[in-house]
Amino acid sequence: MAVYTEVGDEELDRFIAEYDLGAVLSCKGIAEGVENTNYLLQTDQGNFILTLYEKRVSEGDLPFFLGLMEHLAGKGIPCPTPVHGRDGAALRRLCGRPAAIVTFLTGMWPRRIKTEHCAEVGRALAALHVASQDFTMTRHNALSVDSWRALLEASAGRAFEVQDGLADILYQELDHLESNWPTGLPSGICHADLFPDNVFFIGESLSGLIDFYFACNDFFAYDLATCLNAWCFERDRSFNITKARGMLSAYRSVRAFSDAELAALPVLARGSALRFLLTRLYDWLHQSEGAIVRPKDPLEYLAILQFHQGITRPGAYGLD
Amino acid sequence: MAVYTEVGDEELDRFIAEYDLGAVLSCKGIAEGVENTNYLLQTDQGNFILTLYEKRVSEGDLPFFLGLMEHLAGKGIPCPTPVHGRDGAALRRLCGRPAAIVTFLTGMWPRRIKTEHCAEVGRALAALHVASQDFTMTRHNALSVDSWRALLEASAGRAFEVQDGLADILYQELDHLESNWPTGLPSGICHADLFPDNVFFIGESLSGLIDFYFACNDFFAYDLATCLNAWCFERDRSFNITKARGMLSAYRSVRAFSDAELAALPVLARGSALRFLLTRLYDWLHQSEGAIVRPKDPLEYLAILQFHQGITRPGAYGLD
Repeated sequence: MAVYTEVGDEELDRFIAEYDLGAVLSCKGIAEGVENTNYLLQTDQGNFILTLYEKRVSEGDLPFFLGLMEHLAGKGIPCPTPVHGRDGAALRRLCGRPAAIVTFLTGMWPRRIKTEHCAEVGRALAALHVASQDFTMTRHNALSVDSWRALLEASAGRAFEVQDGLADILYQELDHLESNWPTGLPSGICHADLFPDNVFFIGESLSGLIDFYFACNDFFAYDLATCLNAWCFERDRSFNITKARGMLSAYRSVRAFSDAELAALPVLARGSALRFLLTRLYDWLHQSEGAIVRPKDPLEYLAILQFHQGITRPGAYGLD
Repeated sequence: MAVYTEVGDEELDRFIAEYDLGAVLSCKGIAEGVENTNYLLQTDQGNFILTLYEKRVSEGDLPFFLGLMEHLAGKGIPCPTPVHGRDGAALRRLCGRPAAIVTFLTGMWPRRIKTEHCAEVGRALAALHVASQDFTMTRHNALSVDSWRALLEASAGRAFEVQDGLADILYQELDHLESNWPTGLPSGICHADLFPDNVFFIGESLSGLIDFYFACNDFFAYDLATCLNAWCFERDRSFNITKARGMLSAYRSVRAFSDAELAALPVLARGSALRFLLTRLYDWLHQSEGAIVRPKDPLEYLAILQFHQGITRPGAYGLD
C-alpha cells in the first residue's frame, strides 16, 4: 500500500518530542502493510517503525497488541518492541489517529518459500506460544468459527460472481465445521496471521515476526494450521508435504503436540482455510472505488480447503 | 505511490552480488517518487536507495542522469551518488528494468515551507548551477517552449472539463511566450523539477537534493523560476514575496544574476508555470483506470501563471 496518512512537519516534531529518540534523520512512508500507515523512522538512536492505526484496527485492542509485543520481545521473541515516551506511554495520537513507535527489525519476507523457511516458522510459532503463556491480557478471536456464518451471509448472495455454486460449497463446509469444531484443545495467544509477509529472514534464518494486529486467544493448533496453509502450498495450489513436515516437526521440537491436537489438525486446517476464504471473498466483493490495495484471490483458499477436505488423519501432513 | 515492481529474493541476491555492499539487512519499498520503483536498502555498509526505472524515464538518458549525480556529488552538492558494481558499472538491469543503487540521503522534505527553506533552496540551486559548469554531457530540455504547443494540442479538446475557456487562455499565453521567449541567457545544467518533495532538510538546513530525472540543459534563470513557482506560493495560491526575496538573494549570494536574466524572470516564470500546467493538465485528462498516483491539480498552476502575467519588472519578486 501507499501511505494513507501524510504526517506534517510540525506534527511529527511534536510527536517525536514526546520520546527520548534524539533528532529525526529521515522518515519515509513504506509500501508494506495493508491495514495501517507505516513510516520507517531514522533517528540518532537507530531505526524505528512509526505506525498510525487506520480504521481497520480497533483502538480498544491496541493496548493488548502493544502489551503483547512488549511481553514477547521481553522473552526473546524477535518481534517489534513498543517504544515508550517520556511519560511512560507507548500509545498516543498523531494526525487524529492512534499511533505508536516500535523498534525496527532487519530482514526481508521471503517471496519464494523454501523448506528451511517453513521449519524456522514452525519453531518461532511454538516459541511464541510458549512465551505468551504468562501474558495476562486476553482478546477473543473475532474471526473464529462463531463469526463465520455472519461473514458468509454478507457475501453469499454475490459469491457466484467469483465462482458458480460457491455459496453452496461454503454453507456445506460451514455446517460441517460448526458441528465438528473441537473443544478443549490447548490454547493461548495466537498470532493468527503469520503469513510470509509477516516473517522476516536474513538468508534462511528467521530475524523477525511482525504485524500482531490479529493476535488473539485461540487453540495453538489453529494458529499452526493457519501457517500450514500460508506456507506449505505451492503457487500451483499443490500441497508440499516436505515443507509441512519441516514446519510441524520444528514446531514439535519446541512445544509437544497432544494427541487431541494432532487429531484435530485436519478440521482446524479446513476452518482456517474457510476463515481466509471468507474474508478474502468479502474484500473481493466489496472493493472500494480507487482502492490502492489489490484484494487477494479467494479461490486460492478454496483449493486449500478442498485439499484438507480429503484428509482424514494428520499423517497426511507428513507426521509419523 | 506504492512499489511498482516487486523484486524476488533470488533476483535481489544476484543483483546485490554484483556490488561490494556486504549482506542485505533489509529492503523496503518506499512510498515516495512517482516515476520509478524505489527501495530503501540497508546493508552492512549503510543505507542506499535501489531504483528500478519504470517506463516514464527513457533508458537512453540514464547515463546522463547518473553521470550528473556523480559529478555533482564529487563537487560537494548533497545529492545521491551512484554506487558502482565490481565491474565498474553503476547502471544494470533488475526484473527486466534498468536499475541502479545510489547513496541514501538523510532528511525529510518539508510539508510546510518556511522562508528559511526557500533561502536554502536558492543557495543550493546556485551551487548546483556552478558545480555543473564543467560537466561535459548534455541533455536537451524535452519540456521547454518548443514542446508546449504539441502538449497543449494533446489536451486542448478536453481542457474545458477542467475549466471553461481554459484552452483559449493557454493558447493565448503560448502565443505570447513563443514570441517573447528570451535567447542567449546564461545556461547549463538545470535540475528542472526542484519541488519541495525533492529537497530534504534536517531542521532548517538543507541535507539533500534528489530526483535528477528531469535534469537537462536550459537557462539557469528558468530553473530558478521553477523554484520560485514551486516554493513561494502559499496554499491559497497567493505569492509570498518574503520567501521569494529569501530565495533570490540567497541564489545571488552564490551566483550573480546578469541584467538580462533579471529582466527575463517574469517571462521565464510564466513559461515554467505553463510547462507544469500543461503536463498536469495532460495527466489529469489521461488518468489510467486503477492508477495509484493521484494527479496534481492543473489549476494551481493557472493561478501562478496569472500572477506572473501581471508582473512587468523583477522588483515584484522582492529584488531591489
